[in-house]
Amino acid sequence: MTVPGPGYAITARVEAPASATAAGDLAVAVGRVGGVMTAFDVVESRTDSIIVDISCNALSEDHTHEITDALDALDGVRVRNVSDRTFLVHLGGKIEVNAKVGLRTREDLSRAYTPGVARVCQAIARRPEDARSLTIKRNTVAVVTDGSAVLGLGNLGAAAAMPVMEGKAALFKRFAGVDAWPVCLDTQDTEEIISIVRALAPVYGGINLEDIAAPRCFEIEERLRELLDIPVFHDDQHGTAVVVLGALRNALRVVGKEMNDCRIVVCGVGAAGSAIIRLLLPLAPADLLAVDVDGIIHPDRPGLHPSLHWVAEQTNHENRTGDLHDAMPGVDVFIGVSAPDLLTEDDVAGMAEKAVVFALANPDPEIDPAVAQRHAAVVATGRSDYPNQINNVLAFPGIFRGLLDAHARGISDDMLLAAAAAIADVVAEPNPLFIVPSVFDATVATAVAGAVRKVAEQHPGDERGVSVGDALALGAETAKAAEGADE
Amino acid sequence: MTVPGPGYAITARVEAPASATAAGDLAVAVGRVGGVMTAFDVVESRTDSIIVDISCNALSEDHTHEITDALDALDGVRVRNVSDRTFLVHLGGKIEVNAKVGLRTREDLSRAYTPGVARVCQAIARRPEDARSLTIKRNTVAVVTDGSAVLGLGNLGAAAAMPVMEGKAALFKRFAGVDAWPVCLDTQDTEEIISIVRALAPVYGGINLEDIAAPRCFEIEERLRELLDIPVFHDDQHGTAVVVLGALRNALRVVGKEMNDCRIVVCGVGAAGSAIIRLLLPLAPADLLAVDVDGIIHPDRPGLHPSLHWVAEQTNHENRTGDLHDAMPGVDVFIGVSAPDLLTEDDVAGMAEKAVVFALANPDPEIDPAVAQRHAAVVATGRSDYPNQINNVLAFPGIFRGLLDAHARGISDDMLLAAAAAIADVVAEPNPLFIVPSVFDATVATAVAGAVRKVAEQHPGDERGVSVGDALALGAETAKAAEGADE
Repeated sequence: MTVPGPGYAITARVEAPASATAAGDLAVAVGRVGGVMTAFDVVESRTDSIIVDISCNALSEDHTHEITDALDALDGVRVRNVSDRTFLVHLGGKIEVNAKVGLRTREDLSRAYTPGVARVCQAIARRPEDARSLTIKRNTVAVVTDGSAVLGLGNLGAAAAMPVMEGKAALFKRFAGVDAWPVCLDTQDTEEIISIVRALAPVYGGINLEDIAAPRCFEIEERLRELLDIPVFHDDQHGTAVVVLGALRNALRVVGKEMNDCRIVVCGVGAAGSAIIRLLLPLAPADLLAVDVDGIIHPDRPGLHPSLHWVAEQTNHENRTGDLHDAMPGVDVFIGVSAPDLLTEDDVAGMAEKAVVFALANPDPEIDPAVAQRHAAVVATGRSDYPNQINNVLAFPGIFRGLLDAHARGISDDMLLAAAAAIADVVAEPNPLFIVPSVFDATVATAVAGAVRKVAEQHPGDERGVSVGDALALGAETAKAAEGADE
Repeated sequence: MTVPGPGYAITARVEAPASATAAGDLAVAVGRVGGVMTAFDVVESRTDSIIVDISCNALSEDHTHEITDALDALDGVRVRNVSDRTFLVHLGGKIEVNAKVGLRTREDLSRAYTPGVARVCQAIARRPEDARSLTIKRNTVAVVTDGSAVLGLGNLGAAAAMPVMEGKAALFKRFAGVDAWPVCLDTQDTEEIISIVRALAPVYGGINLEDIAAPRCFEIEERLRELLDIPVFHDDQHGTAVVVLGALRNALRVVGKEMNDCRIVVCGVGAAGSAIIRLLLPLAPADLLAVDVDGIIHPDRPGLHPSLHWVAEQTNHENRTGDLHDAMPGVDVFIGVSAPDLLTEDDVAGMAEKAVVFALANPDPEIDPAVAQRHAAVVATGRSDYPNQINNVLAFPGIFRGLLDAHARGISDDMLLAAAAAIADVVAEPNPLFIVPSVFDATVATAVAGAVRKVAEQHPGDERGVSVGDALALGAETAKAAEGADE
């Protein structure tokens, strides 16, 4: 973070002299050490002193201490206590379970619970498909993690992943009316995770995998898709890929290029990178170069991990070798989902005319967007303090809304492509600073949901079995045949 | 059911002639076939006809058809459609997940989700005990079932158990402000259930096992209590036992007897019966006879199941043999958690003076309570249409409220006994028709929660490890020593 933000927001309760200059002195003290004051509330006023709550944004935890120390150092000023506003938001958790039915009278109880409920149970036992209408299944999604890749923080475990999963559940409700529940598993064993999610599935109409480390996440997703008759979606993969694709669609409109003419570098082939490549390939870019820590991926690269064979086979038509810098000259699009500061200004300067740079590493991008902008026509990041934020919130709520509404039994690449197009189309006239809609644009989730639902209902058989990964592994021809056979 | 109840409630939309007698004719038709009309709403009135919604309670599904047929048979009357009001209550499920935090602005998002949430995750990773304050764990309970013993309906499976578990979750919120979530597992393998619940535990502050068949339920509960640092409570066992004990306490006040002078028959030694015996024994009744399908339990009974050895050893001081009818003469208390119509009028007539009969088999009790009342001083059932309903709703919400508030790491027999006493004491002056409070008495959950919390906080070490079953299996002396050693 280079600008103080609400992620580090504190409120300090301060006792200060009741002088005319007190407010000014306090504000100056905060500003002098680089804090940004956001609110000044007088709590109590006495003859010779005042108690005020000073809210401000900081750069980091250490910086919050610098700010309170600066206040404390003022003559006659005493900081009584400091509350961390981010922590306050999380206190007691961020979601709750509420009854949708009245339980005020004996009659209510008899219908919603015993004895009336018995008939409803028997109805579902007779016709299992009625669970979608008579239980929460039709609107409920599990947000499943093993805590092995929490945000960019690494393997923090199940308990520490909770705040993210609760937040995700809150977003699901806020943006698409979906009931989502955190399933944080205290195991990182692939087989155990698969068997647990399989066993839990009766409650849910969809599974959102989250913050599970690669390559484990690929196997878990693929196996669950085979086992379950509800959609399984790994947001770190497909959510990111959908928003990237939507943004890229508009970026290409802005620069006036066609996908088939573009040469693209994808830097990072973890969960997000793999999914982006998988979703891009069917759109037939002129070429696609995948780059990881060991350089450009090509079939003859020594020690190539088996999970990357399909990437090597279907990318890099010119069989290029070398590192990221060798990949960059002349390409039209850079998509980074890797690590901070891997891309140099020279790399961007050497790209084709009207280059597109998506530097999505979080919290620090592959290149400072201000630097990239000197040479590229369109720049996007994952950050909220720059234009063109690539944010999964644009995709997952609407995607699941559409899947649930369609009673979908699986999810297909066509649905993901439709979701990407829907996100792009919300922006009527894209420009270099506006290629994706705001996360607060209420029309996004509705548009995405509608697009996904339409595809799901057009091809009710399609979405089962054949995942994006499968389709590409099989090769486009074989996949088409397989899909046809499924129908 | 012998009286039409809201469990079978329908609303029929009927077109009838616009005559002065129409309303009366319709009501008479419903009454003639035994239905109970609960509402008559005119939907539309035309010159020569009216459309009305007729709501009525019935005895059974077949009975609802009889009622609509009777309406349809009236001259000029046509039943347009019939909606089942119980099913309407369950449509779309009975619970939902809501956000407790605002997500309206960019600042909200930054604090509740990324990037602010990262610091909260890191805080929990550093101090796992902070999960109780910074996540939903502190107020959240899992309602876990494998669907193997759904109500009295048997092994319906996970999906068909959902309506009960959702209802339970709704009751948890309604009566004690607890957030509860259904965990319906599509497996009935003891080991798999144990390992799944262990893995799920980070999200929850307590586990409520529900509708899991005996004897599997005993092992699952015992093993989970050893594995987890949150309370594990099987409601079918301990919830029932707590309410029975509370009711018995007041019943004995009514008849003026002391527990130590009472001879008690417990009929049925499944989940509920075992737990009732376990909770009663430490209160030292004069004698306790346990009876199952094979008759009175005693140590020499051939083929006695190993899980019943502890019952044989600690009950039946006179070493009686025979069937239920042999057990009954002269006993003070009958507690039935078994099957319909096992107890005869003669059995009750042969009990001691001022007998207490709890006939709790559901939906049809061991003896018609009207018959039992001819000879017994106090009669209770599990039904809502008789006085003295033994209903678990009196226990589980308050028990978990208390456990969560105390941050309890387990649950002890002392807590259960305290809960039973609290339920009993809500009834200031018990009489034969009023030995338990109404389920809608708002003071019950508060009283139970307070009692449980008090015990939990007095002996913060006690509740771990030693379960009621363990304690009794060890024998009272050894158990006391073991508890002492734990402290």
